[in-house]
Amino acid sequence: MKIAIDAFGGDNAPLEIVKGAITAVNLIDDVEIVLVGKKQPIVDILSEYGYEGDKIEILEADEVITNEESPTTAIRTKKNSTIVVGCNRLKADDEVVGFISAGSTGAILSGGVFIVGRMPGVLRPALAPTLPNVKGGKSLLIDCGANVDCKPEFLVQFAQMGTIYMKNVCKVENPKVGLLNIGVEDKKGNNLTHEAFGLLSQAKNINFVGNVEARDLLSGDVDVIVADGFHGNIALKASEGAIKNMFKLMKDQINKSGCFAKLGAALMKKTFKKLKSGLDYNLYGGTAFLGVNKIVLKTHGTATAQTILSCVNQVKEIHESGIIENLKASFSENL
Amino acid sequence: MKIAIDAFGGDNAPLEIVKGAITAVNLIDDVEIVLVGKKQPIVDILSEYGYEGDKIEILEADEVITNEESPTTAIRTKKNSTIVVGCNRLKADDEVVGFISAGSTGAILSGGVFIVGRMPGVLRPALAPTLPNVKGGKSLLIDCGANVDCKPEFLVQFAQMGTIYMKNVCKVENPKVGLLNIGVEDKKGNNLTHEAFGLLSQAKNINFVGNVEARDLLSGDVDVIVADGFHGNIALKASEGAIKNMFKLMKDQINKSGCFAKLGAALMKKTFKKLKSGLDYNLYGGTAFLGVNKIVLKTHGTATAQTILSCVNQVKEIHESGIIENLKASFSENL
Repeated sequence: MKIAIDAFGGDNAPLEIVKGAITAVNLIDDVEIVLVGKKQPIVDILSEYGYEGDKIEILEADEVITNEESPTTAIRTKKNSTIVVGCNRLKADDEVVGFISAGSTGAILSGGVFIVGRMPGVLRPALAPTLPNVKGGKSLLIDCGANVDCKPEFLVQFAQMGTIYMKNVCKVENPKVGLLNIGVEDKKGNNLTHEAFGLLSQAKNINFVGNVEARDLLSGDVDVIVADGFHGNIALKASEGAIKNMFKLMKDQINKSGCFAKLGAALMKKTFKKLKSGLDYNLYGGTAFLGVNKIVLKTHGTATAQTILSCVNQVKEIHESGIIENLKASFSENL
Repeated sequence: MKIAIDAFGGDNAPLEIVKGAITAVNLIDDVEIVLVGKKQPIVDILSEYGYEGDKIEILEADEVITNEESPTTAIRTKKNSTIVVGCNRLKADDEVVGFISAGSTGAILSGGVFIVGRMPGVLRPALAPTLPNVKGGKSLLIDCGANVDCKPEFLVQFAQMGTIYMKNVCKVENPKVGLLNIGVEDKKGNNLTHEAFGLLSQAKNINFVGNVEARDLLSGDVDVIVADGFHGNIALKASEGAIKNMFKLMKDQINKSGCFAKLGAALMKKTFKKLKSGLDYNLYGGTAFLGVNKIVLKTHGTATAQTILSCVNQVKEIHESGIIENLKASFSENL
């Protein structure tokens, strides 16, 4: 299978992206990479790192969409940008199964919807990161920012897409679905969650277990957390920020402490490192954009070669799970 | 000054609440407490802890509103509940400056609005916790759950109330106000935040600095974080949950580690404790319900004697800051 990668997306592009692609083709059987971007810099890095194989193709695209641009305008006007060229190739080439980018989230979503295309029957594609939970498993948060003014019926589809993802990709038998809300009681929430709660309780093909609070985002009590994209984004970023600030405060506190605590911290260095990496969902790869016709994976702007390797593995896993076909079959029933 | 306290609110009532009241009158000059609840259990605890002074009054109220009841119905029908009796006393007695409860949040808010009364000119009173930030200061989050379907103009008033709180109570000269959003760029967000951004940019008496992401909730970059109550609640609980789960994971990780890490953890015990208590905003007291005619303070359901002591100090501080008069003066201008 071939996987296309935006070689010029994110803060560490193109170096880390190209290095990641080299590692991926060296380590993973049956995977070829299409690197999308300006040819010469890519050629230079490939040659610098001694790659001489034939499993990396370069697809010329000499523009980059920045975070500052309006995503929809950029997708329409920058025909030669890495995201537009990458999405076009994904759409047109049956051999290419997925597209990975660390670039502008908005542009990736627009490219997904307007170029790769919405699956028939899906109202709104959604961004669905898998988060490491404290039980050692993963929970899927859907949506975390693609749709910021959701209707209740969108949330029902998010629950259905999330269920199919957890069954197919994460091999969870009967995934529990929770609705992100401000309390666990059935009647808690705002207009959107009230209506969504009613619809989710009646919806077919999902195992809806009720409301879940943001404090349980990482608890692993449910497998799929359904949310309006605005709410999901707030919950995800608040969790990230709290953890980051915790480590910062811990460092400050250690610096202010006596030599016992400093010695203690030195002895715990490995533990801290494991803990940090266990919580860093970026290490696990990227966030799938579910509900478009092929696999589109958005990864963090700070993506390194290691992140890109994880993303390639993830696209391969998603592809081999058959989820795209299952999603298509499931949603075409609604038509 | 007198402060009324719901003696039967929260998981540790009445024991911890009554103990907290005893400590408060023993430690704080010029404060008298009105304990609201069933007389005999309160008398028993006062006598068990040897309190024989005259600075604690008991105000009989033999019902308790539970978290399971509809708040508005309960406030209307349970006339003899601690929250209704406490709010009535607060409203009627000029000597009583505030009411503290660890009971049902919904009932406290309903009591605040329907009994103590909305300030003239205030559209929606709001729950406003002060959160410890990583710069060592405090930031105010307003609203964090009282209003779950906000109109943009409510958010402008939250910004104004929050500004007055930070100026009066926390002595911040020109408090920076940020709008909780899913990105820092001006155009980010949903319908509500788009409209609110425009209104906040034009609003008088506030120092609006733009959007703030949930990951910066504890960063201390702004002094007042304005949010729809649903969004604020999600952000706050996600942060709490992430920190709680971090400590849980750290414990698990230490248990799985070798003796060096275990020794390290033992040496760092004090540091961890300081860190945990620094992040636990419940220790700081309670959450003010701003925009009602007198001071109403909601504290955590797990409140202990120490929490109650902090709450009494907080009510005293709020009262002495003159914020109630300043809020009234400021919002009556709108009429």
